[in-house]
Amino acid sequence: MDVDAYMAERIPLVDHAIEARLALLSETPESLQGAMRHLIFPGGKRLRPVFALAAAEAVGGPANAALPLGVAVELVHTYSLVHDDLPCMDDDDSRRGRPTVHVAFDEATAVLAGDALLTEAFAVLADGVGSDAEAQIRLGVVTKLALAAGAQGLVGGQVDDLTFEALGEAGSGSGTDATWLASIHARKTAALFQAAIVGGALLAGANEGQCSRLDAFARDVGIGFQIADDVLDADSEEAASILRLQGIDDAKDGAEALLVRALGRIEGWGEAAEPLRSLARFAIRRQR
Amino acid sequence: MDVDAYMAERIPLVDHAIEARLALLSETPESLQGAMRHLIFPGGKRLRPVFALAAAEAVGGPANAALPLGVAVELVHTYSLVHDDLPCMDDDDSRRGRPTVHVAFDEATAVLAGDALLTEAFAVLADGVGSDAEAQIRLGVVTKLALAAGAQGLVGGQVDDLTFEALGEAGSGSGTDATWLASIHARKTAALFQAAIVGGALLAGANEGQCSRLDAFARDVGIGFQIADDVLDADSEEAASILRLQGIDDAKDGAEALLVRALGRIEGWGEAAEPLRSLARFAIRRQR
Repeated sequence: MDVDAYMAERIPLVDHAIEARLALLSETPESLQGAMRHLIFPGGKRLRPVFALAAAEAVGGPANAALPLGVAVELVHTYSLVHDDLPCMDDDDSRRGRPTVHVAFDEATAVLAGDALLTEAFAVLADGVGSDAEAQIRLGVVTKLALAAGAQGLVGGQVDDLTFEALGEAGSGSGTDATWLASIHARKTAALFQAAIVGGALLAGANEGQCSRLDAFARDVGIGFQIADDVLDADSEEAASILRLQGIDDAKDGAEALLVRALGRIEGWGEAAEPLRSLARFAIRRQR
Repeated sequence: MDVDAYMAERIPLVDHAIEARLALLSETPESLQGAMRHLIFPGGKRLRPVFALAAAEAVGGPANAALPLGVAVELVHTYSLVHDDLPCMDDDDSRRGRPTVHVAFDEATAVLAGDALLTEAFAVLADGVGSDAEAQIRLGVVTKLALAAGAQGLVGGQVDDLTFEALGEAGSGSGTDATWLASIHARKTAALFQAAIVGGALLAGANEGQCSRLDAFARDVGIGFQIADDVLDADSEEAASILRLQGIDDAKDGAEALLVRALGRIEGWGEAAEPLRSLARFAIRRQR
C-alpha cells in the first residue's frame, strides 16, 4: 500500500476539520487566535489524527467516525509542543522552520494559546452528539484522552523528561536509566498514540478485544516512533534520547523489533487494517 | 438561611471528592503531585463547586449529582490561578498567604501542574464515577465546561485582561473602557460560574427553561462576585478592576443591582432554591 497516497488523501480531511473547528472561535482575541493557529498551520505530518482514522477503518468503520478525535489529538499534540518550547522548559526558538509561539508572540500568549488548544480538544470531542449510545462511547474517549494527556500521561512524562535532562547534565547515572527512559517515552509519546488509535477504533464501534490489541499495537508504535525521532534527530542534544543509552544501529534494531511486535498484535485483520500497518511502518522506518 | 452553616456542610463533600480524585494519580512524579495540590489544599472558599451543588438542589435533585462537576470546576479554577500567577502574566509571589506554585516549585512545574489540573477536570467529569445522569447530559456538561474555560471564555478573558492592563499602564483610554471590562469579567469570571451552576442543574435533571434562567442568574452572580472582589481588593493594583472606572460606592451599588436582578431570575423557585439565593447574597455582599 502506498502510504504517501493514503496520507495525502487523509490529511486534508483532518486539516479541513481543524479549520472548521477553529473558525468557530471568532469571538476570541485576535492575538490568541493567531497564536493558536501558528503551529497548527501549515502543521506537521498529522500522524496522530491519520492513525485515528486508520484505526476506525481497521475495525470496519468509516474513517470519518474518528474525525472529532483526530482534531482533538492534534490540538493536544500542538498544545504540548507550544508549552514544551517555553523558555522555562526546553527554551526552543524555532520549530518546523518557524519561530516558536512564544517568540512569534510572547510568553504569556504562548502559555494561554496552549491552554486554549488543550481545552478546545475536549470541546470538539464532546460537542454535537445525537444519541445516548454514541454519547456513552464519546465519554469513554474523552476520559481516555484526558488520562493520556494528564498527570499520569503526557504531562507526567514531560516532568520526568525535564528531570532526566537535569540529571543528565549533572552527570548523574540516574539520567541515563533505560527503564526510566522507556517510561518517559511511554507517557510522553506513546500515550497519545494509544488514545488516538484505541479512541478512533472505539468511535467506529470496536469491541473490547480489538481495543486491547490496538492498545498494545499503539504503545509499540508510539515508542518505536519516538526512537525513530531520536535517530533522525541524532545531531541534536535532546535530553531524553535513546541515543544516550545505545548506538544508532542498536536503536534502529530496537525500533524494528517494536514494529514487528506491533504488526503481530493485529495479525490476520485483513485488508481493512492495511492503512494502519502501512502507517506503523512509516512511523518507525521513515527517513524524515 | 445560614450560609456559613450550609457551606460548612458542603465544603467537606467537595474536599473529600477532590482528595479522592487526586489520590488516583499515584503514578505521577512527586513534584507534579505536590505542585497540583499546593494551591488546592487548604484551598479557598470552594464557592464554584458549592454553587454547583446548590444548583442541583434548586432544581429538585440531590447535591451529590453535581459533585463530579464541582470537582472539575474547582480544578479548572485552580489551574487558571496557577497560570495567571506565572512571571510572564501577573507575576505574583504569594496567594492565600502562601508562596505561589512557581515560587514554591519552579516555573516549568507550575505550567505543567496547571496543564495537569485542567486535563484532570475533564477526566473526572467524563469518567462519571458517582454520576447517575445520562451520558448525553454528562457529555453536554463536558462541552459547556470546555467552552467556558477555553478561548472564548476564561482563556480569552485572561488574554484581554493582560491587554487591558498593558493599555492602562500606557495611559491609553482603551484601557479604561467599561464595555470591554464587562466583557473581560463575563469571560474570566462569570463563564465558570455559569458552567458550574447550569451544569450542576443539568446533572440533576434540570429542563431547558430552568437552565436558561440559571444561566442568566449565574452570569449576574459571577460579575457581581468579581465586583465584590475588586472592592475587597481596593488597595491592590489589579489591572482589570471596576475601581478604575468608578468609585467604591458606585461599584457596590452596581453589584447589589446585579444581585437583585439575579434573584429575580429564580423568583418563585421555593425552598429548594434557598441555598442558591443565600450563596448569591454571600458571593456579592461578603466582607472577606
